[in-house]
This record gives sequence, structure tokens and C-alpha cells, in this order.
Amino acid sequence: MTRNHTPKSLAVLLRARMHPDALPSSPSQLSPTPPTDPDPAAPPAASVRHWLHAAASATSPPPATLDSFSDGYRSLDRVGRREVLRSLATDYDVPRARVRDLMRQYMSVASAAAIGVDGAEAEEGKEGAAAALYRMERGLREALRPRYAGFLEAMNAQPGGLKLLAVLRADLLALLGEENAPALRALDSYLKEKLVTWLSPAALTLHQITWDDPASLLEKIVAYEAVHPIRNLIDLKRRLGVGRRCFGYFHPAIPGEPLIFIEVALHKDMAASIQEVLWDEPPTPESEASCALFYAISSTQPGLSGINLGKFLLKRVIDMLRRDMPSVQIFATLSPIPGFMQWLRAKLASQMKLAETESQEGNSLEGASSTFRESILLPDEEKMIHDAIEQAHGKQGIELLQDILKTSQWVKSEKLSAALKSPLMRLCARYLAREKIRGKALDAVANFHLQNGAVSEPSQIQF
Amino acid sequence: MTRNHTPKSLAVLLRARMHPDALPSSPSQLSPTPPTDPDPAAPPAASVRHWLHAAASATSPPPATLDSFSDGYRSLDRVGRREVLRSLATDYDVPRARVRDLMRQYMSVASAAAIGVDGAEAEEGKEGAAAALYRMERGLREALRPRYAGFLEAMNAQPGGLKLLAVLRADLLALLGEENAPALRALDSYLKEKLVTWLSPAALTLHQITWDDPASLLEKIVAYEAVHPIRNLIDLKRRLGVGRRCFGYFHPAIPGEPLIFIEVALHKDMAASIQEVLWDEPPTPESEASCALFYAISSTQPGLSGINLGKFLLKRVIDMLRRDMPSVQIFATLSPIPGFMQWLRAKLASQMKLAETESQEGNSLEGASSTFRESILLPDEEKMIHDAIEQAHGKQGIELLQDILKTSQWVKSEKLSAALKSPLMRLCARYLAREKIRGKALDAVANFHLQNGAVSEPSQIQF
Repeated sequence: MTRNHTPKSLAVLLRARMHPDALPSSPSQLSPTPPTDPDPAAPPAASVRHWLHAAASATSPPPATLDSFSDGYRSLDRVGRREVLRSLATDYDVPRARVRDLMRQYMSVASAAAIGVDGAEAEEGKEGAAAALYRMERGLREALRPRYAGFLEAMNAQPGGLKLLAVLRADLLALLGEENAPALRALDSYLKEKLVTWLSPAALTLHQITWDDPASLLEKIVAYEAVHPIRNLIDLKRRLGVGRRCFGYFHPAIPGEPLIFIEVALHKDMAASIQEVLWDEPPTPESEASCALFYAISSTQPGLSGINLGKFLLKRVIDMLRRDMPSVQIFATLSPIPGFMQWLRAKLASQMKLAETESQEGNSLEGASSTFRESILLPDEEKMIHDAIEQAHGKQGIELLQDILKTSQWVKSEKLSAALKSPLMRLCARYLAREKIRGKALDAVANFHLQNGAVSEPSQIQF
Repeated sequence: MTRNHTPKSLAVLLRARMHPDALPSSPSQLSPTPPTDPDPAAPPAASVRHWLHAAASATSPPPATLDSFSDGYRSLDRVGRREVLRSLATDYDVPRARVRDLMRQYMSVASAAAIGVDGAEAEEGKEGAAAALYRMERGLREALRPRYAGFLEAMNAQPGGLKLLAVLRADLLALLGEENAPALRALDSYLKEKLVTWLSPAALTLHQITWDDPASLLEKIVAYEAVHPIRNLIDLKRRLGVGRRCFGYFHPAIPGEPLIFIEVALHKDMAASIQEVLWDEPPTPESEASCALFYAISSTQPGLSGINLGKFLLKRVIDMLRRDMPSVQIFATLSPIPGFMQWLRAKLASQMKLAETESQEGNSLEGASSTFRESILLPDEEKMIHDAIEQAHGKQGIELLQDILKTSQWVKSEKLSAALKSPLMRLCARYLAREKIRGKALDAVANFHLQNGAVSEPSQIQF
């Protein structure tokens, strides 16, 4: 690879990104979504299930069988892939009859061991019983593994196998969205557990991605950047240049493609807006930087959803920056808050509904209504919103707010923006810090950061 | 790293190898054997057990605790390490009471599910029972994991953790050699299973080791070459030069050090002796090579014993050589046969004993003796040995053979070598091909090769 080739390949890719259907090498090839039209020469799902059976029944499946399965599976359309996934989940399930037999044996040995053996041979008997228990526990662990466990492990050991398993899990997650069958859920949970082991931080290599990297790698950064799309070559080059860093986590089984990558900007102080980070020109001289702003993190494999590679990547990048740039003391993130508006709109709608019911039913529900009614806006905030609106038509503050937030026109009005800033900041802080789901922050992005030890700085929240 | 530094560092190492006690940087640092004299400042085993407890009790142990455990464990002497290993195996064992509870619950749900539900809610009931079964099976898999499982996994995810686990297993294997307790055996079997998963071929990178590699890597090749020790710098350089290859398997968690490496010589045809391979000067021009001779394979981590990395390494190296050098058609190995002489001496001794018993007891054991007595030597071979010996003193062939093999003086006598060649070749072929232990070749080296698909060529066996 020479530098001369880089811009050209990337230019082709960037064009392809803009007109995904215009070029045969469109980035959709990078995505694991199954083709909608099956290749007429492709083997039908039945052949793929045949190879699956051959691979899943063998103690150590021959590489050629695993390859045939992989190629066949990739060539299937959505319907065919789903047929194979259902078969994998149900036909190669836990051998329940065997599990029950082993459990009965275990229970009898375990109670014999608990009773103990008296007399001269007590010690020897105990040792023998202990050895039997360990052996049976091992056997039980083995029997409780679904029969597809060996197939998944052999596939992972195969060149290209990890990638195939990521594709398979992406398909499985899509299928689970529509068909929440227990066997499919169990397959997903088992596969996820295995992926967590295989993708342990110990098996991953941290690599700083720079403009000197091969174009084949850089094109993946362009294709997969999910937070702030890369607009052109100048944009990409700047993200890899002075005052910026881009780090990827690589696995030996998926060479030349990060599983996940993170983009960092080095600033004098905490930036207030993402525009400042992306278009800061010229960038802060690195010697003056005291703040590392993580402004984007993107995963390249939808099938690795939930594996939490981001947490470990972030930790290693922070450790490395701390070591290499001791002047950098602040580590911050500027993140979108994707669920806030949706949450706020739902909140406003439910409060409007409660208010309506209350006024219709008079005092009959007074006790109940007071439980669910809340004051969304403080009196000052109500007043500011009323003052900013010319025709309030006698509406309440939350009704006005609901109307304003129907479109994003308000951001263009200085008066409205000024009036909304205070209530929206306060409500957003509440949304981030207090709204929970199963003990975790309701907002997925907030949850990611808070789990990694971040602290929110509400003064930085931007609309 | 520049080439100028390489020879110097290696010269230091080679000196250290010859006088392991003369230099502080002796290669014994590379070995995981615990120091015999504990550092007086080192924490005692009790502190290490304290960190173990802290790490093994947490859901996600803090990295600092794992590091304290690692440092503490490494600083312990053999007695301290054994105390920690025993504690790990017994104090963090399978939670048996919980396993029994879960099993009772599972058995009742499993039988309810087997009976089935009739009526309108049958389908829904079935689905609910299935979901419960999967959930309980997952819970049981979890409960059947020893409590040290989480500790081992967290340690593996920690920088330097995989290496620590390899050290720990090496200590455990040494301990098991003296104290075959069921709990220790179960710990070894569990840890081995985990290591097989973590060191799956997918997580390993194949790298050709050359004279351009860092001295810090090359010194490890010198230190760990186990089959034919590297004598000097010229020897090392030749093993990495024209007509030779050296490949290593690397894991991201243990950088700069192969887990295992293999040495290959390219020849015109199958070499008849290891001397030819090691001292062939000048080497065969690579364009004329038609045979790849694998002459040494060495593991650097005694704690990874039994993981069978060699099998996968061999396979990948053969695939690579096939692709890069299509003229190479023969893949062979010249291996020592470490167990042959021992086996033969034991065989001769037992046959002598049987013969003695028989002559003492006359005909009384005739039936029994004929079962165990065998003709070790063919009549021709007996004759050749008699002819080669000046004073046979009326001894039988096998008695003479036993006398001759007491020392290795016979290899210096042309007459004796000629007389012994035919019987020893025949007996060695029998030893390799027919002597089994648990269905595998009795000889460990032969077993390794035969499992990898090798065929023995008895005409090449050398004495």
C-alpha cells in the first residue's frame, strides 16, 4: 500500500456511499443483511441444513463441511436463513433426557456423600465419593450444553468463522424482534455468552488508526462511522490528523477491520458543541490540550450487539492517553441524547390525558389523579413560555410546550429558544439521572456512559 | 530495534544459557517455576489468599485486586503457591447445595412439561413451560460452574492475566504430580477447558520468525528451543535463513513471545538424519526444495500442556507452505523416539524374568507361560547377534541384547551396529505402530504425529 492509492480508493468508496445503488461495490456488501433475491445457483436452505447436520453431529467437524455451511448460509435469502436458525435452535437443543438421567444419578451420589461413610475406609470412601461428584458435575456441565455448542465452537476456530457467527447472530436478533420463541432466545443467550468469552479484551488488540493505514481499513471507518457520518476525504483526514485520535479494537480472526472504533478530539477545555469538535480549524495544538473529548464510537458488527466492547475500548484508550499525554486531565464525551424528545413528548401527552380525564370526571378521581399528575413545568417556566408566545389561546404551559415541540421550528426563534432553555435543561437532567429501566438509565447512550463511570455536566447539554 | 543490537543481546543471553547462575538475567526468569527463596519483603500466602477472596467474591473484581493477587502469587515460594492453589480448588468450588435445589426444581418442571397441558391454553402453557426450562437450564449451567470460574475469567481479561494463569496451571500440574486430590484435578480440568477456549486458533496469529525480528523475541527462541538446543549465534541465524523457516503462534495477550514455535528445513528429498538437517551447508536452494522437514516444535508455556496448539500450528504452516511453495510436495518430520529404549529394556527384562520363572518351575506353568512369552528376536536376528559377539557364554539372544543395550558403546562398533540394525528397526516399528495406551500410541511423540495425520516411514528410523 502506498499513500498514492489511498485517496483514490476512498474517493470511489465515498461516491458509492452517496449513491449506494449506482456502483456494484456498494457498501451494502459490508453489511451482514441477507440478500433479498437469492442467487439462482445458490443451494436451498435444505442443503445448508444438511451441512449443519453434518457439522453438528461430528465430534470435530471437518473444515470443508463448516466452509460449505458458511458459504451456503451466506447465499440464503432471509426466509432460508430463518429456517436454518430455527433448525439450529430446536434440532440441536439441550439433550433433556440425558440431563434428567445424569441428575438422578448425581442426586443419589450427592446424598450418599452427604451422609458420609463410617469406619476404617471412611477417608478413602470420602475421596472416592468426591472424585465421583466432580466427574458427574463435569458430565452435567457437558450435558447441559446445547448440542449446537460444539458446532459454534468449531465454527469459531475456523478461518472466517467468527465473522460468520456475527452475521448469524445479527440475523437471529432480527428474527427475535418478530418471533420471540424460547428456543431462539436460548440460542441467542448461549451464542452471546460464547462471543463474550471469545472477544475477551485479552484477545483484542488496540490499534491507533491513522492516515498511514491501508485504504481497505480506512474505507471501513467511512462506512461504519455511525454517530457523525464522514462527509468527504478532508473530513476523514482531519479526524485522523493533529489534535485527533481514532482507535480501533481488532481481533486476529477478523483482520483489517476494527470490531469497534472510537474517535477522540483533543481540546483546551470541554467543548460546548459537536460543531466545535468536528469543525475546529485549525485544531488545538496538542501541547496545549488538557481535555480529551470522545465524540463518536461505532461498532462494525451488528451481530456483536450487547457484548460491551465499547466499555473496554474506552478504558484502554483512556489509560493510553493518560500515559502518553499527562497534560490531558479531563476525559469527556459529547453525546446525542436520542431518547429525550420521545420521552418528553410521551410525558406531555400522558399528563394532558390525565388533566383531560380529571376535568371530565370532576372530583370523583381526585385521590387517584393526584398520584399520577405531576407539575412538568415550574411556575417561572410556565410564565416564560406564556410570555414568549403571542397567541396562547388560554392554553396551559404544558399544552403550549407540546405544540411548540411538534416541529423543530422553535430552534430558529431566539425568543422561544431562550424561553425553553431552562425547562428543557432541567427536564433533560431529570431524564438522564432519574428515569430508569430495570435499574439502568432509560436512555441507552446515557446508560453506556454512566456504566463507564461518567458524570453528567448538565451545563453542557445542548439543544 | 536495529540489526546491530541483535547479536549483542543474544550473545549475552547465550552466555547466560551456558552459565545460568553466573548472570542476574539468567533465562530462569523466563520460566514459571516459583523462586525457591521467597523475597523477604514479599507478602505471605495469607495476603495472597486475601486478594483471592476479594477477587473471587466480587461479580466483576477490580483490576487492582487482580493485579495484587498476580504480583503476590508470583512472589510466593512453592509452599505458598500450593497453599493458594489448594484454597482456590476447595474454597471456591461448585456451590453444591444450590445445584441440588435447582435440580429438584428442574426435575419437577421437566416432568410437568413432559406430561403436557390439555385444553384451550395448551399452546400457551407449553411455550411458558419451555421458557421456564431454558431459564432453569441456564441457571443450572451457571450454578454448576465452580465459584472460581468468574475469577479465572476476570484474570484472563486482565492485561498479563493469561500469562499468570499459565504460570498457575504449571504449578498446579506439578502439584498434581505429587498430590492427586479430586478438587485439584477438577480445577485443572476446568482451567484447561477454559484455556482451550481462550487459545482457540481464531485468537492466535501465525508469524514467521526471521533474523529481522526483535532480539527480545529471538532470545525466547534460543531459551525455549526444546528439541535441538541452539548452540550459538551462527546456529540461530542459519535456522532463520535460506532454506529454513521458523513459525510461531502468538496471542494478543502475550505479545513478543510465541506460545509455541516450529522449525522447518527445506530439502531436495527426505533427510535421513537430523545432522543433515541441522548442519546442511550450504542449504538446498529453495527453488530445488520438494520436501519440508519439520525438525523441532517447542512450547514456551509449561502451563499450556495438553492444549494441543501444535496440531493447529502444524496445519496452518503446512497450508501456508503449500500455497507459497507449490514445488514442496512432501511434508515430513524427523523426530526423536524418546520412549523406545525404555520400552525395549522393560520388554527384555520381563521376558527374561518369565524365562527364568519357567525354567525354575518346570512344566507346572506351561499353559500360563506360553500366554506371556513372546519371541522378541527372529531366528535370523538371534544368529546375527551371536555371530557379532565374541564371547556369548552360552547366553540366549535376548540376554545378549540386554547386555549390549546397557550402555551406548555398541553404536561405536560397526559389527554390532550392523547386527542390531535389523532387529531394532523391526522392534521400533512395532513400538510405534502397535504399542498403545488408551487407544493412542504409547510413545507421546509418535502419538502427536499420528494424530496429525503422519505416516511412519520405518526405513528412515535412525539409531
